[in-house]
Amino acid sequence: MSEFNNVTIVREANVYFDGAVTSRKVVFADGSYKTLGIMMPGDYEFGTEAAEIMEMMAGEVEVLLPGETEWKAIPAGESFEVPANSKFGIKVKTIADYCCTYITE
Amino acid sequence: MSEFNNVTIVREANVYFDGAVTSRKVVFADGSYKTLGIMMPGDYEFGTEAAEIMEMMAGEVEVLLPGETEWKAIPAGESFEVPANSKFGIKVKTIADYCCTYITE
Repeated sequence: MSEFNNVTIVREANVYFDGAVTSRKVVFADGSYKTLGIMMPGDYEFGTEAAEIMEMMAGEVEVLLPGETEWKAIPAGESFEVPANSKFGIKVKTIADYCCTYITE
Repeated sequence: MSEFNNVTIVREANVYFDGAVTSRKVVFADGSYKTLGIMMPGDYEFGTEAAEIMEMMAGEVEVLLPGETEWKAIPAGESFEVPANSKFGIKVKTIADYCCTYITE
């Protein structure tokens, strides 16, 4: 287990895909933010605005990153990065717990 | 939207019922804590240790509280209380976003 200290959390969840994907926003003292989320099994496509670092804390997923033609397995404990203003596909095989960091430099 | 400030959040989710119910723990400066959670549609039974105040931020649910024989609808924006060391039933009709406060006096 790990934790974020001295943060603000928005109480209300963000809900996507009829609730199959949900997340909550955590804001840090410097104004940067992350989301902590859950993805139920399924296939999804997400668009990014800011660049993102997606850390998979639990679950089995495969991702199709922009410009790639092959799906890549991301094991729990590993991360993948997505550029700003792009799209990526994700196949969630088992319920996934993730931490998404937004790079808004 | 509302938020909790100057809190600690545990990154990893708590996962129940194969992920149909998930929550994250938020710890306050005084050591008290709450969980922010999502319940997908379904019927669940939960046991309590501490007494709980369950605030439904979104979703349609009905609850069967200890000692009651009739299910009671809890609209979004309302709360229900559950005594310590008891059980309650909940029927989730539409995805529910909740905030659970634990009373550990």
